[in-house]
Amino acid sequence: MSDRGAGGLFISFEGIDGSGKSTQARLLHEHLIAEGHDVLLTREPGGSPGAEEIRALLLSGGVDRWSPETEMLLFTAARRDHLERTIRPALAGGQIVICDRFADSTRMYQGLRGVDLRGRVEALHDLMIGQEPDVTLLIDMDAAEGLSRATARGGGEDRFEAFGAELQAAMRQGFLALAKEFARRFRVIDGARPADVVARDVRAAVVERMG
Amino acid sequence: MSDRGAGGLFISFEGIDGSGKSTQARLLHEHLIAEGHDVLLTREPGGSPGAEEIRALLLSGGVDRWSPETEMLLFTAARRDHLERTIRPALAGGQIVICDRFADSTRMYQGLRGVDLRGRVEALHDLMIGQEPDVTLLIDMDAAEGLSRATARGGGEDRFEAFGAELQAAMRQGFLALAKEFARRFRVIDGARPADVVARDVRAAVVERMG
Repeated sequence: MSDRGAGGLFISFEGIDGSGKSTQARLLHEHLIAEGHDVLLTREPGGSPGAEEIRALLLSGGVDRWSPETEMLLFTAARRDHLERTIRPALAGGQIVICDRFADSTRMYQGLRGVDLRGRVEALHDLMIGQEPDVTLLIDMDAAEGLSRATARGGGEDRFEAFGAELQAAMRQGFLALAKEFARRFRVIDGARPADVVARDVRAAVVERMG
Repeated sequence: MSDRGAGGLFISFEGIDGSGKSTQARLLHEHLIAEGHDVLLTREPGGSPGAEEIRALLLSGGVDRWSPETEMLLFTAARRDHLERTIRPALAGGQIVICDRFADSTRMYQGLRGVDLRGRVEALHDLMIGQEPDVTLLIDMDAAEGLSRATARGGGEDRFEAFGAELQAAMRQGFLALAKEFARRFRVIDGARPADVVARDVRAAVVERMG
C-alpha cells in the first residue's frame, strides 16, 4: 500500500450483530499497523469521552426508554462529539481511521422504523454531521447465523441484541439497501467464511480504495 | 379566568439568570392552582426522567466540554423527550403547562455564538421539535442587576452562570431581539420591580392570552 500524507483515510465497518465486523475492524487495524501505517481504531456509539457518556445513556434501560426521535438526536450528538474530538483530528494528522459503525447504522435502524424517520435521519445528518467515510465495508451475513453468533458471544449491548430473528433479517436487508444507495463508497463482503478469508477481502477492498 | 378544556395552554418563561423567571413561574403555578386550574410546572433542560439525565450531562464539566453543535443536539434531545413524555401528554389532558425555559433559551445562547449557529438551531428545531409555547413571558432585567442577584443566590448551574457581565448583557439583548422576532407570542415584563408586582403583570398577560 502507498503511504498516505495529510488528509488520512476514513474507513467504516457496518453489519448486523454477530457479523464479525468488530473482529474484522480489529484485524484490519493490526494489519495496517504491521505495514507501518499510522492507524486509529474507534467505534460508535462512543469513541470520545463525551460520546462514551452519551453511549452509556443510549445502551442502558428498556427498549422504550427513548423515542426514535430522541434516540436519533442522542446518536447524532455522540457522533458529532466523536467526529470533532477524535475522527477529524486524526484524519487531519494523516492517520487512517477505522470506525466500527458510523452513520449508516443510524440510517439502517431508524429506516426500519419508517420512511418518515429515515428522511429525518438524513436531514439531521446533513445539518449536523455532513461527513461520510471514504469507504464503508459491509460485512454481510445471514441473519439467523449472525443472531446465533451474537447470542453465543453474549455481551453488554442487550438493548440492540434483544430484537430477535425477524428484525435481524430486516436489518441485514436494510444494510444491503444502503450499500446500493451509496454504491460508490460501500463494499459488500461475505462474512460467513472463516475470519482470515474475510480479512483478506477486507484488505483488498482497502488497498483498492487507497490505490 | 375561563376554564380551559382539552388542548391546554403552553406557557414558557424566559430571561437571564437572576431575572426572577423561576420565581415567577412558581408564583403563577400557585396562583393558577388556587384558582382551580389543572396546572403542570416543569423546566428545561430536564422535565422528564430521560431529559434530567441529559441535563446532568449538559450542566456538569467545563465550558468547553461540548462544542456548540453537540450541546445544541443534547439540548434538543432533552427537549424532545420532555415534550413527548411530559408536555404533550399534559396539554392533551387539558392541563396548563408552565415551562421554565424552552426553545428560546437555546435560540438565544447559540445565537450569541454566531449567525450560522442560530440558523442551525432554527433548522434543528423545525426538524425535531416543531412546537412553540402559546405565550412566552420574558422577565426582562438589567444585566448587572441580574448577575448580582444570580451570584448572591449561588446554585448548581455553574456552567451557565460563570459567563460574566458582558455576556449577561448580550443575553438580555438576545432575548429582547427574540421578543421582537416572535412578537405574537412574547410578552416582555419588567422584572426589576418587587416580585408581587411582577407577578401581577404575569397574571394579566396570561389572562389576556386565555381570553
